[in-house]
Amino acid sequence: MKQELKIPQATTKRLPLYYRFIQNFAQEGMERISSKELSEAMKIDSATIRRDFSYFGALGKKGYGYDVQHLLQFFSQTLDQHETTKVALIGVGNLGSALLKYNFQKNHNTHIVVAFDSKAPKDGKMISNIPVFHPDLLEEKYAEYGAELAILTVSPRSAQKMADRLAAMNAKGILNFTPERLTVPDRMQLLTIDLSVELQALIYLIRNQEV
Amino acid sequence: MKQELKIPQATTKRLPLYYRFIQNFAQEGMERISSKELSEAMKIDSATIRRDFSYFGALGKKGYGYDVQHLLQFFSQTLDQHETTKVALIGVGNLGSALLKYNFQKNHNTHIVVAFDSKAPKDGKMISNIPVFHPDLLEEKYAEYGAELAILTVSPRSAQKMADRLAAMNAKGILNFTPERLTVPDRMQLLTIDLSVELQALIYLIRNQEV
Repeated sequence: MKQELKIPQATTKRLPLYYRFIQNFAQEGMERISSKELSEAMKIDSATIRRDFSYFGALGKKGYGYDVQHLLQFFSQTLDQHETTKVALIGVGNLGSALLKYNFQKNHNTHIVVAFDSKAPKDGKMISNIPVFHPDLLEEKYAEYGAELAILTVSPRSAQKMADRLAAMNAKGILNFTPERLTVPDRMQLLTIDLSVELQALIYLIRNQEV
Repeated sequence: MKQELKIPQATTKRLPLYYRFIQNFAQEGMERISSKELSEAMKIDSATIRRDFSYFGALGKKGYGYDVQHLLQFFSQTLDQHETTKVALIGVGNLGSALLKYNFQKNHNTHIVVAFDSKAPKDGKMISNIPVFHPDLLEEKYAEYGAELAILTVSPRSAQKMADRLAAMNAKGILNFTPERLTVPDRMQLLTIDLSVELQALIYLIRNQEV
């Protein structure tokens, strides 16, 4: 599997999206699909789709397009849809609460199973049916609930400290919603979503569209 | 400005981040900086930094690096930091409430000025000091409060309908937090942040790291 590490992050982020659309096409009974049809449904240009798919070898044939069942099987395997991933949420402030309530309900394969917040009592409390413990119990409860990765919605000043503790516990990855640029060991995966940066990027696109 | 439209979206998203780090370097009194130093501080590889900067012409000199004040001025102009952008938030559910409370406080140049929610009374109510109106008043209040773009945190089934209304009002852009793939006119900018997709991308990276 190691050679797949070179797949660009932008491609990686599109994989779950491809999977969702291909599921829809399969449900509609389609047998094959062209990159043009995929492009129109997903609003991604077809050159990008062909390049993305090329990272995974010959998924289609020229002049024929892609076999829907073959794609379905491929993405299902690639994205491990049959295995549930247990997630810990660290920091139950405004954004953390929203994520707890949302809890990725449409993804049957990912689930927040435990949360941590500095305002929680030592023996824990329930929020949106998920147990929330004091961060003093992070190491103990993370393992007890079988979490594999963490969503980080703490304050920026606590972010690196939490990342260090997660690294020491051999957590596999962090989805970082803080604006901090975190340092983690190479063996850990890190994705950062900085909402301010996203908004500023959109404003930049708007300003540079205007003449 | 039209030629700048070809800058990749991944580069665009890094611009606010570059600006933030360069501000820090300027405050520390640094006069010049190499792509290697920027790379270490930002945890982005230096080839990416050089490629990103190359889109904006000759910002640095070989063997010298980049002039911090020059970069500062460049990013400040490019990102329009002196102009405040007024934003409307549509959909005050869990995520919408979190964004209202957060309100991009660290960005002095962007501010949510008005919000809309189907549960709000016709004459509006205040949440986190921001007026929230019923969506029936979208066209009227969006204009009255001078919003230029919208953050969309409505339910998926309302998303395209709201996007159509925003398009008819000549809104400049949408930051879409719904999982819907929206259709908007070419003149509008659209950025989508699908939290499930981000989480699945992280899980994919983790699974494919394991042998």
